[in-house]
Amino acid sequence: MTLHTGAAEEVPLDGVARIEADLAEFLSSAEASAGPPLLAKAIRYAVFSGGARVRPRLCLAVAQACGCEQPAVVGAAAGAIELLHCASLVHDDLPCFDDADMRRGRASVHKAFGEPLAILAGDALIVLAFQMLARVADAAGARLPALLSIIASAVGPAKGIVGGQAWECEPRVVLSDYHQAKTGALFSAAAMAGAVAAARDPLPWRAVGARLGEAFQVADDIRDAAGEAGEIGKPAGRDAQLGRPSAVTQMGLTQAVARLEELVTGAIEVIPPGPKAGILRMLIEAEVVRLLPKRIARRAA
Amino acid sequence: MTLHTGAAEEVPLDGVARIEADLAEFLSSAEASAGPPLLAKAIRYAVFSGGARVRPRLCLAVAQACGCEQPAVVGAAAGAIELLHCASLVHDDLPCFDDADMRRGRASVHKAFGEPLAILAGDALIVLAFQMLARVADAAGARLPALLSIIASAVGPAKGIVGGQAWECEPRVVLSDYHQAKTGALFSAAAMAGAVAAARDPLPWRAVGARLGEAFQVADDIRDAAGEAGEIGKPAGRDAQLGRPSAVTQMGLTQAVARLEELVTGAIEVIPPGPKAGILRMLIEAEVVRLLPKRIARRAA
Repeated sequence: MTLHTGAAEEVPLDGVARIEADLAEFLSSAEASAGPPLLAKAIRYAVFSGGARVRPRLCLAVAQACGCEQPAVVGAAAGAIELLHCASLVHDDLPCFDDADMRRGRASVHKAFGEPLAILAGDALIVLAFQMLARVADAAGARLPALLSIIASAVGPAKGIVGGQAWECEPRVVLSDYHQAKTGALFSAAAMAGAVAAARDPLPWRAVGARLGEAFQVADDIRDAAGEAGEIGKPAGRDAQLGRPSAVTQMGLTQAVARLEELVTGAIEVIPPGPKAGILRMLIEAEVVRLLPKRIARRAA
Repeated sequence: MTLHTGAAEEVPLDGVARIEADLAEFLSSAEASAGPPLLAKAIRYAVFSGGARVRPRLCLAVAQACGCEQPAVVGAAAGAIELLHCASLVHDDLPCFDDADMRRGRASVHKAFGEPLAILAGDALIVLAFQMLARVADAAGARLPALLSIIASAVGPAKGIVGGQAWECEPRVVLSDYHQAKTGALFSAAAMAGAVAAARDPLPWRAVGARLGEAFQVADDIRDAAGEAGEIGKPAGRDAQLGRPSAVTQMGLTQAVARLEELVTGAIEVIPPGPKAGILRMLIEAEVVRLLPKRIARRAA
C-alpha cells in the first residue's frame, strides 16, 4: 500500500456532514422534552468537539459499499456508534482514569463542567445511543435486533469498550485483548452495522473493522509519540509518560509505521467483493494519511 | 387505605425469586465471553446486594395483571429495569455525588472496588440492560421498539434518571421535575413495560407507575428520617445532613405518612380494570408496609 499525502482532499466528504446533521437533529429532538440545561450543554460539548467521526464514517462507507438503500437506518446506527465513542472519551478523561485536562485542543468535559456532569454526560450518551437506534425501529424492522446486539456488545463489559477500559484495573492484561476490546470492538461493530443496515451478512465485515481498529490504534500511538500538541489536540507523549502500552514504545517509530501499513493492507484485502469496494478502499487509504502526523505521512508517501 | 403489618408474608413471592434467577442467568451468559474479572465481580456486587427489586416486581405484577403470556419478554424487561436502577445507585454513591460509603448495609461499590471500577460497573450495567432486552428480540417481535423506547427514556437525560440526577447540578430546580425524573420515570417505565410485554396499551399504566414512584420516594424519605441504620442498610438522617429535599423535612413525619397513604390509594384507583387487578392491589399494599420503618408501619396499621 502507498499512502498518498493530500488524498483526503481528493475524495468526497464521505458522510461527515451527514453525520453531523444527524447528530445535531437527534440531540435537538432529545432536548425538546426540557431536561436540566447544564447536562444538555455538557452533552453537546462532548459530541461537537471536532471529532473526526472515524467510526460512523466507516459504518456509512460499508453500508454504501453494500448498496444500502435505507439511509435513516444506517444514519442512526452510525450516530449511535459515535455517541458511544464520545461517552467513552468523556469517562476515560476523568481524574480517576487518564486525568486528562485537554481533549481535541480544549478543556475536557470534566474540566469544563465539573466531574458530576461529566459522569452524567457519559451515562446520558450511552442511553442516547440506544434511543437513537430505537427511533428508527420501524424502518429497521427485522434488522433492529442485530444492530442492537452488535452495537451493545461492542461497548459492553466483556469484549467491548467498558471491558477494555476495565483491563486497566487488572493486575495482568493480555495486550491484544485490551486493544481489541478498547478500540477494535467498536470498529468491528461500525463495519458490521453498516452491512446489517444494508441487509447484508455482517460476519465478513468483522475482520475489516478489527484490522482497521488495530491500524487506528497504531496510528494513535504514532500521533502520540511523534505528533505535536497543536496538531493532535492533546499533550503529546502521554503514553510514555503514563507507562501505557504503545506500538511505538514496543517496536520503535519506523516499525510502527510499517505495522500500520501492513494492517491497512490487510483490512483492504478482506473487504468482501462488491461494485463499490474500490471507493471504500480509497476512503480507508485517505483516512490513514489524515490520522498520521504530517511529517510521518509525508515520509511514508 | 389501611396498611397491614406483616402482609408481605401473606402474599406470594411475587416474582423476586424469578427476577434473581433471570439476573443471575443473564450475568452468567454475559460473563461467558471472558472479560476483565474484577469488573465482572464489581457488576455482580452491584446487582446482588439485597435490593428489594421493587421496580422489576412492579413490572412483573403489571404484566401478570394484564394476562402476560410471554414470561421471557417481561422477564428481560424487568431485568433490564433493575440493571439500570443498580447502575444509578452505583454512580449516585460516587464521591462527587452522594459520597456514600455504605449501601444496603455494606460498602458501596467504589468503596469495595475503587472509583474506576465503580464508574465502569455503572456504565456496564447500562449497556447490559440493553443487551438483556436485545436477547429477547425474537420473542418480543413488534413489542421490542416500544420496550426499548420506554425503558431508555426512563433513564435518559431529559425526563429520566440521568436527567434527575443532573438537576442536582442546576442552580434552580423544580422539585416535582426532579423527583419525577429521578424516581418516578423508572416506576412508570416498569408499569408500562409490563403492559407492553402483555401486548396491552401502556399509556393507562403510566399514572399507576408515577404515583407509586412518588409514594416510594416519600416512603424513602420517611425511612431516612425515622428508620435506624441497621434497619435501612445505610446511615439514617442523610437527607437533613446533606440538605436534600425530603417530604419529611418539608411537611413533617405525620403529614408525610398521610401523603404516602394518599399516593398509594391514588395509584390503586387508576389501575385499569382487569380480572387480576385485585392481586396487584394486594401486592402494592404489602409493598408499602415493607418499605416503611417498622414502628411507622405499626402505627399506620
